[in-house]
Amino acid sequence: MRLIIAVDAMGGDFGPEVTIPASLNCLKKNANLSLILVGDEQVLKSSLADKTDDFSGRLSIQHASQCVEMHESPSKALKNKKDSSMRVAINLVRDDKAAACVSAGNTGALMATARFVLKMIPGIDRPAIISTIPSIHGHTHVLDLGGNVDSSAEQLFQFGIMGAEVVKAVDNIDNPEVGLLNIGEEETKGNEQVKAASKLMENSDLNYIGYVEGNSLCAGNDVDLIVTDGFVGNVALKTIEGTATMISQLMKEEFGKNIFTRLAAFFSFPVLKAFKNRIDPRLYNGASFVGLRGLVIKSHGGADSLAFETALQLAVVEAEKNVTQKISDKVASILAARKIK
Amino acid sequence: MRLIIAVDAMGGDFGPEVTIPASLNCLKKNANLSLILVGDEQVLKSSLADKTDDFSGRLSIQHASQCVEMHESPSKALKNKKDSSMRVAINLVRDDKAAACVSAGNTGALMATARFVLKMIPGIDRPAIISTIPSIHGHTHVLDLGGNVDSSAEQLFQFGIMGAEVVKAVDNIDNPEVGLLNIGEEETKGNEQVKAASKLMENSDLNYIGYVEGNSLCAGNDVDLIVTDGFVGNVALKTIEGTATMISQLMKEEFGKNIFTRLAAFFSFPVLKAFKNRIDPRLYNGASFVGLRGLVIKSHGGADSLAFETALQLAVVEAEKNVTQKISDKVASILAARKIK
Repeated sequence: MRLIIAVDAMGGDFGPEVTIPASLNCLKKNANLSLILVGDEQVLKSSLADKTDDFSGRLSIQHASQCVEMHESPSKALKNKKDSSMRVAINLVRDDKAAACVSAGNTGALMATARFVLKMIPGIDRPAIISTIPSIHGHTHVLDLGGNVDSSAEQLFQFGIMGAEVVKAVDNIDNPEVGLLNIGEEETKGNEQVKAASKLMENSDLNYIGYVEGNSLCAGNDVDLIVTDGFVGNVALKTIEGTATMISQLMKEEFGKNIFTRLAAFFSFPVLKAFKNRIDPRLYNGASFVGLRGLVIKSHGGADSLAFETALQLAVVEAEKNVTQKISDKVASILAARKIK
Repeated sequence: MRLIIAVDAMGGDFGPEVTIPASLNCLKKNANLSLILVGDEQVLKSSLADKTDDFSGRLSIQHASQCVEMHESPSKALKNKKDSSMRVAINLVRDDKAAACVSAGNTGALMATARFVLKMIPGIDRPAIISTIPSIHGHTHVLDLGGNVDSSAEQLFQFGIMGAEVVKAVDNIDNPEVGLLNIGEEETKGNEQVKAASKLMENSDLNYIGYVEGNSLCAGNDVDLIVTDGFVGNVALKTIEGTATMISQLMKEEFGKNIFTRLAAFFSFPVLKAFKNRIDPRLYNGASFVGLRGLVIKSHGGADSLAFETALQLAVVEAEKNVTQKISDKVASILAARKIK
């Protein structure tokens, strides 16, 4: 089956310089994939030169005359940039001309535009952001990473339902274990929203394992999906980044102290490199906006070609597995069951 | 001036085995300090044997017949353990027989008991938990780490006021820089509580630098105190632990892979050890409960002797600087100023 994905080729800190090589690599690896590069036609054509020949019509350009700036306000982008590469890419998803779109652009603008153009799945209020983070045993999926603050119990429950569908598709597992982030594992711990969400999850067909704490994010056992409010999830994600930055910086300082430590660094270089590769953030790039009536994948704005390719590959997998439809069906069946009750 | 501190000698996973050596070391390092070890007199006497002789009356025992278990419910401990080592130690603070108490016991029970026995400073609802975490540039103080969930803007503001007094005392700085944890640095980001707390801090005499994000916790520049809700702070703290555990585990795996990597590990051992010492959690042990009418320091339950000594030393510094009185005066002056308006 032919799969078509729209790429916001102008988005991110580096635009076509990153999006084009990543797109070409992704086409090489996925024989049934077609990509529509959305952006300034002249810029894209000159960047591509004769490279399109290799892909026998699997690569096309859709012109868009505008570009959303990285720090532009979401409401202004929505109002004034109706022909932006981001918006046109999302339009392609709405019009069924692409099964997903991928953008490294401004997160707020992407979320506002996707919500406006694609609309939400009935029963869902706002998109939630789900991504994977590295862990001792591989990786863990976490949502929400910042789409929603002050999430209600019902929203947390919805995150669980939607997130489980993403995990099933991406990790190819049938019944992912779902944990709810809390500040203790005892029943009395936490705020009212979390306690009520726990009850909703217990009474659902989610494979709910109960509360998990912050250390489960990277050092947890056997939890496939961690559900939390977007404020907490976003802080936790950036705390992981900060901790890794600190550790890397302090190790550099220690290895750089004198001739002996620098010698040790020389001997350890291959080991440290192998370690670094295991938690390379580029291999975890790509967050899905769930709850929309269409598949939108956000890449980190500062992504390089490898990182952007990871986000494209995530779009390929989720589109092939039809995650959006599965989420929509699941939410509809839950709402229907409630009405019958 | 003579300083007296009460030690819950039975608390924590290891009891006197840890609290006694730590207490003796702390006495050696602080010539004007006296300690009251609270717990089972017979057990403590036999553990101490003849070691008290060195301290010419600076070490005494206060008998307490009960002990709060590590997983006992706070309400049960409060009701049934009126002669616990924890409770008797707190009573000594209430009765002005000690300037502070230190316990490695059950956090919930310690908080409930401290609140019941000592009462809150007028204007403060519940104790907040403040501690330091390692960072690239030394350390950062963070509160609340789990005392309060769903904190209001007023509570977040109070955390800032109280935390700043702790930072002044512990770090010996006049005007600590205070940041408010949020999910972005723009004004529009975050939830209503955080936005309103930001306004309160801007209009106060706090040295408020604005919003900081999760990565500022370990990799932040120049922020001395980070203020957040207890749910978020607790998750962030445990996320740091989880991230450090993951990195340490993955590095062990890489260094243990084969004969060459094990050789590299051998050469790097002193460097890795020096690095580990810099972020040794034992050097960050000890959290203060602020907002109470008396000084209570909580040590990690699993603390070893060095870690418990760190917590004792924190109590010494905060008691010497009279932090509780300073917090109380500051809160009273803010409340008075509001009444005049």
